Amino acid sequence: MLEMIAGGVCAPKGFAANGVHCGIRKNKVKKDLALITSDVRCAAACVYTQNLVKGAPILVTKEHVKDGYVQAVVVNSGNANTCNANGVEIAEEMCALVEKYTGIKKEDVVVASTGVIGMELKIDPIAGGMEELVKGLKSDGEHSSFAAEAIMTTDTVKKEAAVSFTLGGKEVKMGVICKGVGMICPNMATLLMFITTDANITPAMLQKAISADVKDSLNMLSVDRDTSTNDTMCILASGLAGNAVIDEDNEDFKTFCEALHTVTTEMCRKLAADGEGATRLIECRVRGAKTKEDARLAAKSVVNSNLVKAMIFGADANGGRVMCALGYAGADLDPMKIDVDFRSAAGLLPAYRQGSAVAFSEEEAKRILSEKEIDIEINLNEGEYTATAWGCDLTYDYVKINGDYRT
Amino acid sequence: MLEMIAGGVCAPKGFAANGVHCGIRKNKVKKDLALITSDVRCAAACVYTQNLVKGAPILVTKEHVKDGYVQAVVVNSGNANTCNANGVEIAEEMCALVEKYTGIKKEDVVVASTGVIGMELKIDPIAGGMEELVKGLKSDGEHSSFAAEAIMTTDTVKKEAAVSFTLGGKEVKMGVICKGVGMICPNMATLLMFITTDANITPAMLQKAISADVKDSLNMLSVDRDTSTNDTMCILASGLAGNAVIDEDNEDFKTFCEALHTVTTEMCRKLAADGEGATRLIECRVRGAKTKEDARLAAKSVVNSNLVKAMIFGADANGGRVMCALGYAGADLDPMKIDVDFRSAAGLLPAYRQGSAVAFSEEEAKRILSEKEIDIEINLNEGEYTATAWGCDLTYDYVKINGDYRT
Repeated sequence: MLEMIAGGVCAPKGFAANGVHCGIRKNKVKKDLALITSDVRCAAACVYTQNLVKGAPILVTKEHVKDGYVQAVVVNSGNANTCNANGVEIAEEMCALVEKYTGIKKEDVVVASTGVIGMELKIDPIAGGMEELVKGLKSDGEHSSFAAEAIMTTDTVKKEAAVSFTLGGKEVKMGVICKGVGMICPNMATLLMFITTDANITPAMLQKAISADVKDSLNMLSVDRDTSTNDTMCILASGLAGNAVIDEDNEDFKTFCEALHTVTTEMCRKLAADGEGATRLIECRVRGAKTKEDARLAAKSVVNSNLVKAMIFGADANGGRVMCALGYAGADLDPMKIDVDFRSAAGLLPAYRQGSAVAFSEEEAKRILSEKEIDIEINLNEGEYTATAWGCDLTYDYVKINGDYRT
Repeated sequence: MLEMIAGGVCAPKGFAANGVHCGIRKNKVKKDLALITSDVRCAAACVYTQNLVKGAPILVTKEHVKDGYVQAVVVNSGNANTCNANGVEIAEEMCALVEKYTGIKKEDVVVASTGVIGMELKIDPIAGGMEELVKGLKSDGEHSSFAAEAIMTTDTVKKEAAVSFTLGGKEVKMGVICKGVGMICPNMATLLMFITTDANITPAMLQKAISADVKDSLNMLSVDRDTSTNDTMCILASGLAGNAVIDEDNEDFKTFCEALHTVTTEMCRKLAADGEGATRLIECRVRGAKTKEDARLAAKSVVNSNLVKAMIFGADANGGRVMCALGYAGADLDPMKIDVDFRSAAGLLPAYRQGSAVAFSEEEAKRILSEKEIDIEINLNEGEYTATAWGCDLTYDYVKINGDYRT
C-alpha cells in the first residue's frame, strides 16, 4: 500500500520549504541557508549525535523540542557552529530571525548547522538572507529541493524522498531531506535528516518511532566511523492528514513505523552511495545471528573495515578481510560456521563456506565486484536474527577530500 | 643505565637467527622464511590477537608455549595460513621440519605466518628451504637482519633493536625483530614481534611483563583499526646472562620491564612510521585524564580517526577533528576543558584552549605540520593520568596498497 511519491518534505499537508545562498559560503552559487515551515504546530521528535562534543545548535534545539512541539526548521551549511564561545547565542539568533520574518515563535524552531568546526559563525549573512528565504517559501517539490540543496556540504547529490500510505482509510504522506555521508561520518559532513509527515501522532509515539528506527537505519550506516558533533535527525508531524491520532503501539503505529523505515533506509542507501569519494555502495546483509545485536555488530564491523572498503574500491574479492572483520566484531559467532558471498547486478560469488575459502575464477570475481552496488551476504549459521548495514568504498578521493578540506 | 646496542635478536647470549627465500613468494629476491634458535631451552611468554578468527599457527604455538618453555621460532611471510582447512597440519609440519634439521623438539617451536588469508600454504617450499635456513644460522647482527627481512610483508624497512642493561651487577641484553603496521592492522600485515633476552626470569614473570607492557605499547598502536587474525608477540629468555632469577615483582623485575618497554615502544614508533602508505608518524600524548583507561581511550581515538589521519597527510591544522575524536572516545571528559596542541621539530602550534578554537597563522601551521613526525598533545585538565598512542597518516598509497593487494 506504500507508494513512493514526489514532493520531498513538501509532500505532506501543511509544509513549505526553501533554500537560498545568503553568503556563509564564499562560493556564490551554492545555497547555504534552508527553512522548512508548517502551517500548524507539529508533534516533533529528534535524535542527536552521541559525541560528547556537541554543536551549539543541538543544545538550542533540545530546549525547543522539549515540550514535544515545533513549527519550523532552519539550517545553515558552510559552518558547524561548534566549539565556538558564542555558539549558543548565534543559534538562538537564527531562531529569532525565523520568528521575525515568519511569526513562528522562536521556541518552536529547530536549528541545525553543518560545516567546519571551530570557526565563528557570523550572524550577518543569515540576517541578510532571511527575508528572501521566507518570501520564497512554497509547498512544492521544487522548493523542497532548494532546501535539500542548501544543507549539502561535500554531498554530490541531493537526497530527498516521499511516500504515501494509508492509516484508517486516510491517505498519509511522509517526506524527507537529508545530507551528509554517515551517522558515523566526517565532522564537516554532519548527518542531518529532516522528515515531515501529515500523520496525526503524539510526540511520545513519534519519539518512540524514530528512536527505534534509527537502530536499523542511521546507526547501521558508516562512511568512516567518525561520529560527528552535529548529527541531527528530526521528524515533524502536522496531523493534517486527519487520521485517528496514534497515541499507542497499535496497528496504525506499525504502519507508520514501516513508512518511516522505508524513507530512512532509502536515505541510508543514498547517503552511503554518496559517501565522500565513494565509487561504490556496499550493503552488508547478515543472517543466522544468535541475537539482533550480534547481527548488527557483525554487519557494522564489515562496512566499517578500511580493508574491506579499499578491497571493494579495487574490485578485489578478498573474502579473508570480511572474515577478519567478523572476527573482531564483538559478536557471538563461530568462525568455522561462517558463509560469505559477494553479490551484485552481475551475479553471485561464493567466497567462504564454513569458515574456509572456496576457489573461484578471478575474472568472474572482477566482473561481479565491478558493479556500482556490491552486496556482502553473510550467514553466521547460529540463529534466526538478521541485520543490514550500509557503507561505501575507501578511495583516493576520500583521502584527497579530507586532506584538503579546510585550507 | 640502559643503552641501545646493535645485534637485534642475536645480541643476547645464546641466540642465532637466519632468513632465506624458500619460494612461498613468487618474488625471488624477497626472503620469506625466518628462524631464531637458542642454545638452551628458554622461558617463554606470548600475547596473541583477540580476533575470534585466529590463524592456525597461533593454535599450534599456544600448545607449544603452554609449559612455559620453547627453544626456536619459525616464521613464514607471503601466506597467513589462516582460514585453510589444513592450516593446523601445515603449522605442525613446519615445527617438525625445524626438529628434523636442528634437533630442537617440535613441541619447543613457536610458529607464525603472515600474508594472504584463505589461500592454502604449501609445505613444499618450506621443506625445500629448511636445510639452507638451518645451515646458515649465525649469532650476529647480520643474521638477525636476515630474519627481520624474511618476516616483512608490505613493510618498507626492517624493524629491529637491542638494548643492554644491568641486573644485580650482571649485563643483560634484549633484542627484538618485528614486522607489520599495527596491532590493529591490515590482515596481510599481521603484527609479529619476537623478543630475545638472556635475562634469567621465570615464564610466569615473563608473561606478567609482556601482558602488562602490551597495554601501553602494541595496544596503543593503530594503523587502521583492523585487528589481524595472526598477531603474535613472543619473548624468549635464555637465562644465560647469569643474573639472579627474577621470580617475583622486585626491583630487578621493574628494571626488566623498563628495558622491555624501551624496545617495544621503539618498535611501535617504527611500525607506525612505516604504516601502509604512511608519510608521517603521529604520536598522540594525552595528559590530565581522570584514569589511565580514560587517557588510553582518548589517545587511541585520535590516532584511529580517519579524518585526523587524512588531515595530517594534508598538513592541515584542523583541531576540530581532534576534538571530535575525543568526543566519541568513550573517555570521561569535559569538552569545555580540553586543550589541544600540534608539535613537531618545526615548533609548537596551540589549536584549542578550553574547548574553543584559537586563532593561528596558516603558514605557521603548514610549516609545523609538514614535518615527518607530528605530535598531538592533549590536556584533558581533569586529573593526573597520561597515555601515548602511535599512528600514521591516511594516504592515497594506503588505498592503493589495499585496493590492489591480492590480485
